[in-house]
Amino acid sequence: MKKGRLIVISGPSGVGKGTVVKSLMERDPQVRLSVSATTRPMRPNEIDGVHYFFISHEKFEEMIAQDLFLEHAQYVGNRYGTPEDAVNRMLEEGYDVILEIEVQGGLQVMKRRPDAISIFIVAPSFEILGGRLRGRGDTDEEKVLMRLQQARMEYLVAPQYQYIVVNDRLEDAVSDVQSILRAESLRTKHQQHLLKEAL
Amino acid sequence: MKKGRLIVISGPSGVGKGTVVKSLMERDPQVRLSVSATTRPMRPNEIDGVHYFFISHEKFEEMIAQDLFLEHAQYVGNRYGTPEDAVNRMLEEGYDVILEIEVQGGLQVMKRRPDAISIFIVAPSFEILGGRLRGRGDTDEEKVLMRLQQARMEYLVAPQYQYIVVNDRLEDAVSDVQSILRAESLRTKHQQHLLKEAL
Repeated sequence: MKKGRLIVISGPSGVGKGTVVKSLMERDPQVRLSVSATTRPMRPNEIDGVHYFFISHEKFEEMIAQDLFLEHAQYVGNRYGTPEDAVNRMLEEGYDVILEIEVQGGLQVMKRRPDAISIFIVAPSFEILGGRLRGRGDTDEEKVLMRLQQARMEYLVAPQYQYIVVNDRLEDAVSDVQSILRAESLRTKHQQHLLKEAL
Repeated sequence: MKKGRLIVISGPSGVGKGTVVKSLMERDPQVRLSVSATTRPMRPNEIDGVHYFFISHEKFEEMIAQDLFLEHAQYVGNRYGTPEDAVNRMLEEGYDVILEIEVQGGLQVMKRRPDAISIFIVAPSFEILGGRLRGRGDTDEEKVLMRLQQARMEYLVAPQYQYIVVNDRLEDAVSDVQSILRAESLRTKHQQHLLKEAL
């Protein structure tokens, strides 16, 4: 069985990462989403082990100490991390595993797993990003401006990702991600078996 | 106007490179095929400037001396080369330019133009390649074996190409090349303009 690929997808809040990832998984059954661990409280609509693994601060610290996270980060007072063993299991089973994470964690993964495919998703413009944030019902203008400021910082990290995809029309963005995954599988390093007859 | 990309496509005789390239150009009007110069005699069905630029040995030598070739190679006693200015003109006009050349020339282009996208096309197996060579009406078995021997040598150079595409079903091979071209355009180095708002 061919091992799957590790795929890091990041992008600012409001850009529609989740929708792109969801649509990608609908099109490609080979793709799975990694489930993060978090210390933040479970919300009413959430299921433990599906949306997140909800764990205590103590457990989180313990997992860091044991180096069990592929990446971990802090966000608005809560901690988020990707348990490495669950990811490795899916990869071994041949699934492409998506980590939908913020840039802090994205950089950690790229360093720890240089083979990871990294994609940063941007909005067509900051104006459109702002519009999307406001359209989500987030009417607190100060929060919107803070998210846009956060996005600006994230864009400064984006050049460290391998690919940049614009989420203008969802269908196009998903096709672009699919093209990236297909092209990456055609890279010579993954196709060596095709040349073995010559030896 | 955005500059086009230089695309090197190589692969053994009989693999169907020409068909892949033709089909790609039918699907994508942004793609143009480079016309080579050659010292071999023009065949009845050929048009000068369309299939090749037919030039003398003296002219060919002169162009080498003036460093006017992007690449040049010798094949069964005749010389073949890609005039660089014609390619550059098409690139400036925004076209993606395909060089359908053998590996000798392919390596020269990769060295001279490190930005070139390089794709090596293989057959599903040597058996199938042999079958295709025989199916072309090339009934001289010794010639077929010589071409297969040549293919073996070319496969040893293939790891120096960026991508390897199998030409099993033509449609799939063309889609694969399209995915590569799309993914390459999404590489961060080509998408920097999308991040400039953050600065």
